[in-house]
Amino acid sequence: MSMIETPYLLFLGDAPDQLAAKVAQGIKDWRPENAVGQFRMDGCKADLGLTDMSLEDAKAAGAKTLVIGVANRGGLISKEWKKELVMALEEGFDLASGLHNLLRDEPDLVAVAEACGRSLHDVRVPEVDYPIANGIKRKGKRCLAVGTDCSVGKMYTALAMDAEMRERGLKSTFRATGQTGILITGDGVPLDAVIADFMAGSVEWLTPDNDDDHWDLIEGQGSLFHVSYSGVTMALIHGGQPDALILSHEPTREHMRGLPTYTQPSLAELRDVALTLAKVANPDAQVVGISVNTQHMGEADAKSYLAGLEESLGLPATDPYRFGAGKLVDALAAM
Amino acid sequence: MSMIETPYLLFLGDAPDQLAAKVAQGIKDWRPENAVGQFRMDGCKADLGLTDMSLEDAKAAGAKTLVIGVANRGGLISKEWKKELVMALEEGFDLASGLHNLLRDEPDLVAVAEACGRSLHDVRVPEVDYPIANGIKRKGKRCLAVGTDCSVGKMYTALAMDAEMRERGLKSTFRATGQTGILITGDGVPLDAVIADFMAGSVEWLTPDNDDDHWDLIEGQGSLFHVSYSGVTMALIHGGQPDALILSHEPTREHMRGLPTYTQPSLAELRDVALTLAKVANPDAQVVGISVNTQHMGEADAKSYLAGLEESLGLPATDPYRFGAGKLVDALAAM
Repeated sequence: MSMIETPYLLFLGDAPDQLAAKVAQGIKDWRPENAVGQFRMDGCKADLGLTDMSLEDAKAAGAKTLVIGVANRGGLISKEWKKELVMALEEGFDLASGLHNLLRDEPDLVAVAEACGRSLHDVRVPEVDYPIANGIKRKGKRCLAVGTDCSVGKMYTALAMDAEMRERGLKSTFRATGQTGILITGDGVPLDAVIADFMAGSVEWLTPDNDDDHWDLIEGQGSLFHVSYSGVTMALIHGGQPDALILSHEPTREHMRGLPTYTQPSLAELRDVALTLAKVANPDAQVVGISVNTQHMGEADAKSYLAGLEESLGLPATDPYRFGAGKLVDALAAM
Repeated sequence: MSMIETPYLLFLGDAPDQLAAKVAQGIKDWRPENAVGQFRMDGCKADLGLTDMSLEDAKAAGAKTLVIGVANRGGLISKEWKKELVMALEEGFDLASGLHNLLRDEPDLVAVAEACGRSLHDVRVPEVDYPIANGIKRKGKRCLAVGTDCSVGKMYTALAMDAEMRERGLKSTFRATGQTGILITGDGVPLDAVIADFMAGSVEWLTPDNDDDHWDLIEGQGSLFHVSYSGVTMALIHGGQPDALILSHEPTREHMRGLPTYTQPSLAELRDVALTLAKVANPDAQVVGISVNTQHMGEADAKSYLAGLEESLGLPATDPYRFGAGKLVDALAAM
């Protein structure tokens, strides 16, 4: 990805509900300084609580890029949006999108962008020729969340830890490896779209040498135990050379996401396999904590579940959304 | 890959030595029925011992595709070859190549191929929209060789086992996952060029439901312990759902290929990690044998090394090139 220029005007289009604006919500939650306002069309049912702005207002407020922060069915760029997107380009905005339907595959947008000298950022598509991984040890520290399954809160964990570390004045950078993360921060690697031979190399590229006391908080992807995406997770572990692993889990799930006949591994199984593999690239790797998505549990149940994990696995455990990421950051700071 | 039409005329061009014709040698060794003859230009220093044929001779002998069986420095299609390749298209041959320099990136070849209605097969480039892996258990049996390192003889092991099984009248298919393997057999998946999200799905696609007593012998790639390519290996293990794993090893290597600071794991470490991961996709997976590349050892040393492995690991061990693949096929047949 070439860097997306910030700050953004967040395009909510004709979002049918709040959930459809999940990407915009993520930007507002995690990088509020990147969001100068929201742009809503007639009938939009989502509201981020940001100032509603016209393209002109947003331009005057310093916005550089209109980010499509909404997904509709099929990930399409709807005809209703086109007029507004064309006007945004003419007004001097770049466009950024994580939709399946690429901006660059829309001839009208391409033509207007060229004529106006604007950029179209499709964050699903790698724009860098990544190297093959060389495995050389890099300076600085790296942390990676690995999950018992996909979509258990790995991105959220890394973002919450990054926010907590900044608040404490520690050096940290969230390193995005997926579409939403890239739109939130403005750059990163769309790892699931990288060609197999270059996956680990793209993660090395994303997390270069840094200060000795700097932490890269790498966004996790997939799971070593999810047969559809485990290769991507493997490349993150070996390309990322993590010093610290966080185990991520969602305890109420009945089977692996999208795989009805597969059950989740235990956290102990995940710990053992992930640590063994991480030590190949970094012999000093440690598992330092557990991040649990407790959204489907009552508060008392969640707390007792976390306490039970701390007891049985001997690691700090928290739900960073519900109870804060403090324990996990304490664990990094103690290393 | 769309299927490459067989049989082939093997193009050796102006190969500077025998080693440069490695791909052609592989085809001749493993699918002699696919090789009607060799085509050599002035100054060619390689010789497969096949009949030297003109394009006309080969056409008359039934050859359908001219396979570039030679690699020169940089993987380029040299100017010296161009005249011959153009004539081959005009003569009615398809072209197939595993070079970095793609046939489809040469405008003159593209133009002539179109005019003559011929196909250009670049086996480095996936031509199929592979699905995302669904993890559903498939019928038939599958065997995968996993290595302590890259380039330890995994392809050779699978080809040798396939040959032995056919000789015994057992049902087997070699499933190619790399350029050389694809050119040898005429189809397969160029796994290192597949997009991350579709790697495991491409392996499922390559090894579909089959007879209960049929074995797919899947060509291995990379190594779980090679940080540059481990994600590709992971996708083979989870997409391939192997029933049987063969451990592959080259005992004289001082460090991991291309990674001077990395040492090879022990065969016991490889066995434990590979089996744990394989059981995610196939709870019945077993490690059934060991394949060792002993080319840098004297015969007595090789035999005593293999005997030592059989003793310490309790698995049949052989060098399939030197001592035959019989023991490994016995192990599959006994399952």
